[in-house]
Amino acid sequence: MMSHGYESGRLNLPFVGISTFGKSPYQPDWDAIDADIAILGAPYDFGTQWRPGARFGPRAIREASTLFSFGHAGAYDFEDDETYLDGVRMVDLGDADIIHTNTEKSHANIEYGVRKILAAGALPVVMGGDHSINIPCVNAFSNHGPIHIVQIDAHLDFVDERHGVRFGHGNPMRRAAEKDYVTGLSQVGIRNVSSTAKEGYEDARKMGSDILSVRQFRKMGVEATLARVPEGVDYYLTIDIDGFDPSIAPGTGTPSHGGFLYYEMLEFIDGLTKRGRIVGIDLVEVAPDYDHTGTTAILAAQVLLNAIGRIMLR
Amino acid sequence: MMSHGYESGRLNLPFVGISTFGKSPYQPDWDAIDADIAILGAPYDFGTQWRPGARFGPRAIREASTLFSFGHAGAYDFEDDETYLDGVRMVDLGDADIIHTNTEKSHANIEYGVRKILAAGALPVVMGGDHSINIPCVNAFSNHGPIHIVQIDAHLDFVDERHGVRFGHGNPMRRAAEKDYVTGLSQVGIRNVSSTAKEGYEDARKMGSDILSVRQFRKMGVEATLARVPEGVDYYLTIDIDGFDPSIAPGTGTPSHGGFLYYEMLEFIDGLTKRGRIVGIDLVEVAPDYDHTGTTAILAAQVLLNAIGRIMLR
Amino acid sequence: MMSHGYESGRLNLPFVGISTFGKSPYQPDWDAIDADIAILGAPYDFGTQWRPGARFGPRAIREASTLFSFGHAGAYDFEDDETYLDGVRMVDLGDADIIHTNTEKSHANIEYGVRKILAAGALPVVMGGDHSINIPCVNAFSNHGPIHIVQIDAHLDFVDERHGVRFGHGNPMRRAAEKDYVTGLSQVGIRNVSSTAKEGYEDARKMGSDILSVRQFRKMGVEATLARVPEGVDYYLTIDIDGFDPSIAPGTGTPSHGGFLYYEMLEFIDGLTKRGRIVGIDLVEVAPDYDHTGTTAILAAQVLLNAIGRIMLR
Amino acid sequence: MMSHGYESGRLNLPFVGISTFGKSPYQPDWDAIDADIAILGAPYDFGTQWRPGARFGPRAIREASTLFSFGHAGAYDFEDDETYLDGVRMVDLGDADIIHTNTEKSHANIEYGVRKILAAGALPVVMGGDHSINIPCVNAFSNHGPIHIVQIDAHLDFVDERHGVRFGHGNPMRRAAEKDYVTGLSQVGIRNVSSTAKEGYEDARKMGSDILSVRQFRKMGVEATLARVPEGVDYYLTIDIDGFDPSIAPGTGTPSHGGFLYYEMLEFIDGLTKRGRIVGIDLVEVAPDYDHTGTTAILAAQVLLNAIGRIMLR
Amino acid sequence: MMSHGYESGRLNLPFVGISTFGKSPYQPDWDAIDADIAILGAPYDFGTQWRPGARFGPRAIREASTLFSFGHAGAYDFEDDETYLDGVRMVDLGDADIIHTNTEKSHANIEYGVRKILAAGALPVVMGGDHSINIPCVNAFSNHGPIHIVQIDAHLDFVDERHGVRFGHGNPMRRAAEKDYVTGLSQVGIRNVSSTAKEGYEDARKMGSDILSVRQFRKMGVEATLARVPEGVDYYLTIDIDGFDPSIAPGTGTPSHGGFLYYEMLEFIDGLTKRGRIVGIDLVEVAPDYDHTGTTAILAAQVLLNAIGRIMLR
Amino acid sequence: MMSHGYESGRLNLPFVGISTFGKSPYQPDWDAIDADIAILGAPYDFGTQWRPGARFGPRAIREASTLFSFGHAGAYDFEDDETYLDGVRMVDLGDADIIHTNTEKSHANIEYGVRKILAAGALPVVMGGDHSINIPCVNAFSNHGPIHIVQIDAHLDFVDERHGVRFGHGNPMRRAAEKDYVTGLSQVGIRNVSSTAKEGYEDARKMGSDILSVRQFRKMGVEATLARVPEGVDYYLTIDIDGFDPSIAPGTGTPSHGGFLYYEMLEFIDGLTKRGRIVGIDLVEVAPDYDHTGTTAILAAQVLLNAIGRIMLR
Repeated sequence: MMSHGYESGRLNLPFVGISTFGKSPYQPDWDAIDADIAILGAPYDFGTQWRPGARFGPRAIREASTLFSFGHAGAYDFEDDETYLDGVRMVDLGDADIIHTNTEKSHANIEYGVRKILAAGALPVVMGGDHSINIPCVNAFSNHGPIHIVQIDAHLDFVDERHGVRFGHGNPMRRAAEKDYVTGLSQVGIRNVSSTAKEGYEDARKMGSDILSVRQFRKMGVEATLARVPEGVDYYLTIDIDGFDPSIAPGTGTPSHGGFLYYEMLEFIDGLTKRGRIVGIDLVEVAPDYDHTGTTAILAAQVLLNAIGRIMLR
Repeated sequence: MMSHGYESGRLNLPFVGISTFGKSPYQPDWDAIDADIAILGAPYDFGTQWRPGARFGPRAIREASTLFSFGHAGAYDFEDDETYLDGVRMVDLGDADIIHTNTEKSHANIEYGVRKILAAGALPVVMGGDHSINIPCVNAFSNHGPIHIVQIDAHLDFVDERHGVRFGHGNPMRRAAEKDYVTGLSQVGIRNVSSTAKEGYEDARKMGSDILSVRQFRKMGVEATLARVPEGVDYYLTIDIDGFDPSIAPGTGTPSHGGFLYYEMLEFIDGLTKRGRIVGIDLVEVAPDYDHTGTTAILAAQVLLNAIGRIMLR
Repeated sequence: MMSHGYESGRLNLPFVGISTFGKSPYQPDWDAIDADIAILGAPYDFGTQWRPGARFGPRAIREASTLFSFGHAGAYDFEDDETYLDGVRMVDLGDADIIHTNTEKSHANIEYGVRKILAAGALPVVMGGDHSINIPCVNAFSNHGPIHIVQIDAHLDFVDERHGVRFGHGNPMRRAAEKDYVTGLSQVGIRNVSSTAKEGYEDARKMGSDILSVRQFRKMGVEATLARVPEGVDYYLTIDIDGFDPSIAPGTGTPSHGGFLYYEMLEFIDGLTKRGRIVGIDLVEVAPDYDHTGTTAILAAQVLLNAIGRIMLR
Repeated sequence: MMSHGYESGRLNLPFVGISTFGKSPYQPDWDAIDADIAILGAPYDFGTQWRPGARFGPRAIREASTLFSFGHAGAYDFEDDETYLDGVRMVDLGDADIIHTNTEKSHANIEYGVRKILAAGALPVVMGGDHSINIPCVNAFSNHGPIHIVQIDAHLDFVDERHGVRFGHGNPMRRAAEKDYVTGLSQVGIRNVSSTAKEGYEDARKMGSDILSVRQFRKMGVEATLARVPEGVDYYLTIDIDGFDPSIAPGTGTPSHGGFLYYEMLEFIDGLTKRGRIVGIDLVEVAPDYDHTGTTAILAAQVLLNAIGRIMLR
Repeated sequence: MMSHGYESGRLNLPFVGISTFGKSPYQPDWDAIDADIAILGAPYDFGTQWRPGARFGPRAIREASTLFSFGHAGAYDFEDDETYLDGVRMVDLGDADIIHTNTEKSHANIEYGVRKILAAGALPVVMGGDHSINIPCVNAFSNHGPIHIVQIDAHLDFVDERHGVRFGHGNPMRRAAEKDYVTGLSQVGIRNVSSTAKEGYEDARKMGSDILSVRQFRKMGVEATLARVPEGVDYYLTIDIDGFDPSIAPGTGTPSHGGFLYYEMLEFIDGLTKRGRIVGIDLVEVAPDYDHTGTTAILAAQVLLNAIGRIMLR
Repeated sequence: MMSHGYESGRLNLPFVGISTFGKSPYQPDWDAIDADIAILGAPYDFGTQWRPGARFGPRAIREASTLFSFGHAGAYDFEDDETYLDGVRMVDLGDADIIHTNTEKSHANIEYGVRKILAAGALPVVMGGDHSINIPCVNAFSNHGPIHIVQIDAHLDFVDERHGVRFGHGNPMRRAAEKDYVTGLSQVGIRNVSSTAKEGYEDARKMGSDILSVRQFRKMGVEATLARVPEGVDYYLTIDIDGFDPSIAPGTGTPSHGGFLYYEMLEFIDGLTKRGRIVGIDLVEVAPDYDHTGTTAILAAQVLLNAIGRIMLR
């Protein structure tokens, strides 16, 4: 984030113009990533069963992020008396290539991008797309583990296989749990009826998952919830926007009432950045066609910028 | 809800295709109802004073209900460790005939449908339409009482008569209270200025009504609120979707800020199924034209499916 | 379409209630198809490159079709002084199973449904989904040829392969042209820049295609255009809704300005039913999320009902 | 329309502020109408069978009309080299009282308003509401006939009775034709399948109606169409907005493809003002909930203001 | 608010018809204000940096206010057992003249209107427009001080100057603090990153501001927050609708997650009316183009009517 | 436009990812413009009187332009048998700095950008913003004249001054006509009542303007209209999207019924590129908030890409 003056003849004000994430520089050459944080879009949504449209999630989040890109060095938060993002080197890589009709190739292209980011030593922040894009993201960490998965979601996404489908948006946590470099899962926000049947819950627990509903989170509080997440390890944070309440995140394929409010998750993520090291993030299932007022994309941008700011300050 | 395999050559996946409520079988022959639960649409909305459109409520709720119709036997809720709806015989009767310009005939046709359901020994679940459709629904219970009315609503709906109107959406609770087989009313969620003047509140209390606001509900808690509802009797549950907060139920004619959140009502309804016997339900005032993201219809479907699941388990 | 009276106790009015296509009976048992016309939904849309959502096309078209289902025997058109659809036996089969992430299986399930319809001697009318669903539809005619393809579309859809994709929504006409039972193609409405490069046009012409733009159609007139279509043969009619102008068909993934108006196509289709025998129809790319006023779905329903009515009268 | 200067301390610019029709003075006292033109809203829509919402038509048209209220004396049209509306005394009476659930009283209140206008010697311009509001409007002319009805509409609206309904939006032209002071009807724009069955068309012709489709209008041209309307008599002009094409009038309950474009009707109405005397107008079926971009309301305002301007210049 | 009967021949029902605020009489002559409360629209929005559209805020709030205008004398609130607004003389002045391209003149015209209201001894209630319209409103109090500013807002709006801008929507609280008749500010709801950098917060505190976030408000409670506001003085209350949560106020230019819920602010404003004297109100940043369901405008109307009712009762 | 292969490890598919105009390279350094065509956004909209929002026009057009960015070298048009845009060097400069509340500075910044483009020898294509942004664009040509202005618009925009406003969206053509390097104006599409009073038309004609309505254009035809434009000179083409019909361009502030259809203008612009030399373009008044289906932005992108392709081929 640059300061703005007329020295260069123009201010390049951030509210309008080309929408990169947080108005960060666009880096189309993935062999030249030189940054702390690298943003990647993963506009794949053939993994959804009900409402599609998450393919336009990256564009919507990028555009919404400009609301928070005032351009005066860093982002001052008076409650924390902290200036976030000051001096953080962030680049936007654009999107992975999605090959229509072809899930395998699309996922491979996402994995390729995340591997490039990790090879460059940057922290990958991937904007979905549906939750299945978590599968290639986690694949890319095969040499960067061990990692503990922290999932914020309404749905367990722990289906092994149904109708032959193993790489859809109901499968990613099962696929992650199968990796030897994934040491466990904290699944937070799970609620209501979902695509996972009873067996899925039993399997998840057997395979190292700690499952918490929104009401359980509220009963325990942020601190107690954090205490159940392993301390001092590397976290991969996967945020399904439908973990949030439909009142603030209506723009998603399968909204589920009774979800998290904003500060609950801000405080949880803030605590997470203090408890261990977040080494990768994806935020998925923002579907702009159902986000007429833009609040969902704004929420996604607000959560990601806050998460990045806190990670870089630790 | 059937399991899905290719045995019959097709899976008949529930997310798409013909939208019946919960993907239950469509039964157009009302003399052949053989079910535990019978769904009836009542697409009447001439009883509204401000924004119309509740006539398309049944269609919207049916379509939204398919989100929760995964098809693997029953609906597993990990918080309750309970599988709901497994083995429940549910049919969708389609809609009552609404005769445009004619309130009397439209209401008569709704009453006809509910009487058919009751005669078949099934539990009627009626989707409005505006709240005036509660009037023929309650009429149909003339030989199935006594019943206690439990109303979830922002508005008291206790107007006796205004400008000659006695059967509009501001009148149903008054009409119900006049029945000899209605033993009392619990009116929950009432708040803000509404169509009912001071006298209406006084009349309601005189005629056996217990009126509680959202804030009173919150101060007392679910258990204490339930304790004010007569125990061990038959309840007729009427849910005006505007009893919920506009943040999760914007798609309604007369939204009123400060309403219920999802779990407050889920827990209240859950408690009600344990305290007595719910013998009839209507859910009214879902107006899809104001529900651009679908969250209101999803809420309605989620509430009804949870209510039905719990009733059938007791 | 039935007449409506209170004989059975109810009218079963068509404007509301369960939305089958044209309020025709729902037939979930595909081994029991007994009809002149069988409607099948094909809610597959992973074949789109830009805006998705055609998976909800079948639901939207079904719902819009009820606007034209007045229920008094048949549909009287005073300009033709003809009553269409009177006595036509039409059933709605629901939708083919779409397997998320898996194009091959999804297409196979569509083909399975169309083969069942053809085996039952009914005329298949398939509602997409994206234009790739034409591929399994045409596959199903392998023993019901020869057929001549008549395509109404803005785009040529004649890409052989790109990035390995051969079964996306830019490929169907190429795939059709490769079949030995496809004798030729009339491609009408093609205009503007599209996914097909110059070579695609050359290939199409070599493989038996007659390509006409909207302006060429208008210059020649309906009759002269029809004269270029082989006479007295069996036609398979594939209608991409984006062949119509965005002013009347905004609800589609890749709208293209300068398209057909309503009567141009009605008269063309009317002429086609007189020039040969339409033996199969698909109508694709209706994407309700971009059809806020419903005009696109209404157009689709209006075109299909008029086409069916005319086919059955010949 | 006043000129604007700071003499009174303010300009009272027309684009914003209180929305009366054409920013004309609001006259709530119906016994004090002193004007050439009196605008009345008739927000009744229980007469619709499919999509409601025309009750908010008057508000939407009023708001849209401010776009054409620049405030410099009159409205200059350079094609005609004419300044319309200069010096025209126009008042806005607000709306007739609509009594929810009660068609009879609602219609009576509309009739009451139109009678007040006629008694004051002003020309009534009524904004619906659904097309059934034409019935009380025409009733009010019982002592102001004879009149010839000129209808612009997609639908014939000539149903005598169905399911007991005689005063819905499918009945008004039949009700008008029954009046002894209605000398005949010119029904222009009629097309496609509609609520009127074959018998309705036959009855209409028998009762003095001349029915013309859009295509017939186009084939003949404006002049020849006008020539079929009786010359030199008093016309009551009733405009159903669905007479126009859905591309420019999507905001209506029952859109019908293939309708009129703007200049076709402007020229027809212009011709009508020269051929006889328009003594009353209603414009109905604008449903703002389906008019997301406002073009339908803008069309309605543009048509009404042009009609009024031309009438007052003759 | 008048009672309704047919004595005058009509009821003049409030739900429809001309939309003045609360259906109060329209007073276009600003030299003839005779009322307790005078409503003024200030449809200026060139002061926004991101999403515009607040210029249509006054129209939207007026229209929404009719939902609460039942017409039976006053507004009965059963929780308070109080009838508000009974006998309150309220007039709607229409809007101040906004001169496009010209901020200075537009602001001057707003100030002119507020001065007229104050000169007439009425309480000004101004509907924005963006938050910069607070500047001319406060200017108009130059002879009506001292006043203490109570601001409800997500953003501090305390920027002194940036790129030469001193009168945009990020500057009003700074401009107010500079006035000698402004004794201090209570800034409530401030949260997240905003246009004000760290220096702005420091300046604000130096210049007499008490800044509280939503979380701080919740931790302290309504009473303790009120206790920090000076007692027994004159308050000018400025409400930026984005002080509320995006879940209930999505229709605004720069929504910020984590905001106030309805009853939090109702109780705070209620307390304020008891703690001192509210002498002026503005409510800003309602942008109807982002308020598809109308809940934001309904919230604004509900808040204003409740505030007015309580002020007039003290 | 680049070809796409996996040589670089990725395809960089154009449908998604960072939205520059036509997926052309982003050039933030305005001193390093090396291109045939330079795209500049001018997101200023305080010059509108009615509906704002054109500030987001550049973003919407950029995003829509990706629909036409297939990436296979150039854009093949089979009707012309021509491959457009092949080898054209196009860059996207982002947006000019808009200073909220300040028209003068905002306009100066736009002029600054256009001067930079002209200095670099590239052809400026400016995306508005409201039509007032034409004023700084034409200013920038002070040393690049003489130019003849060709305007496509519904409105004459020839107001000299009103309420002190001289640089709003009703003034640009007057401002242009005053320049000595502007040799004349062709104003095409003008229709209906507009902000320009009779005197404006008279002034325009005196100052060298040729005014043609849509109907006059249609009566004469494209060729005859072109013949009235001076031949062989330099044209500055200014396209107000409301010159097009609201049916295809609803997303604009002041739509006007009866406008141009797509091919009428495509053929007119095509003819213009052959008749003289287009040296600058602006396209204004695309307001995405009123463009729910995206057709307006798609139209703008389609028109601009076609214009650029044709200009570069001459």
